[in-house]
Amino acid sequence: MYGLIVKMVASPGKREELISLLLQGTEEMPGCLSYVIANDPADDDGIWITEVWDDKASHDASLSLPGVKKTLAAARPMIAAFNPPVVTTPVGGRGLPAAKHAN
Amino acid sequence: MYGLIVKMVASPGKREELISLLLQGTEEMPGCLSYVIANDPADDDGIWITEVWDDKASHDASLSLPGVKKTLAAARPMIAAFNPPVVTTPVGGRGLPAAKHAN
Repeated sequence: MYGLIVKMVASPGKREELISLLLQGTEEMPGCLSYVIANDPADDDGIWITEVWDDKASHDASLSLPGVKKTLAAARPMIAAFNPPVVTTPVGGRGLPAAKHAN
Repeated sequence: MYGLIVKMVASPGKREELISLLLQGTEEMPGCLSYVIANDPADDDGIWITEVWDDKASHDASLSLPGVKKTLAAARPMIAAFNPPVVTTPVGGRGLPAAKHAN
């Protein structure tokens, strides 16, 4: 599996709108096992995104999906900054499709 | 919802054993919506844990569950350090129980 932990900073006052957009844009992404969007309670503009994919190729391919491209284009003006993502190698746990536990 | 993003550092050579233990210890935790354990590919001893709970009370209560207490006691000698956790307020996404999307 392939994971990402990213802190994004919304443009001032735009966090809620940006999150609504991101939630819509994550509905159809082949190979995406988990994609959790969270507010940062310590930063009014902060958003944490934690992602689990079956592999890096699925993540990379998702960036070319028409729905994702459209979402990113609409989101870009509302994003003030991306912190450098942490890349992880998820090994298991709860909230991942059951089939993955057996692999 | 209540979330945590934590980097844990295993004692040298103990990461795999520690992760196996943590995976067993996360099977029965009421209110736990997602609990993903991942290796840090940039740090041989690094482990990332990302958690989503229905609320903070469920997380706090989990620390008193007999199974979790037993796991933590067994894990402690294999943990070299905990980085300060990031607390988040998850708002939605994939990999969370469907009922939570409607709330």
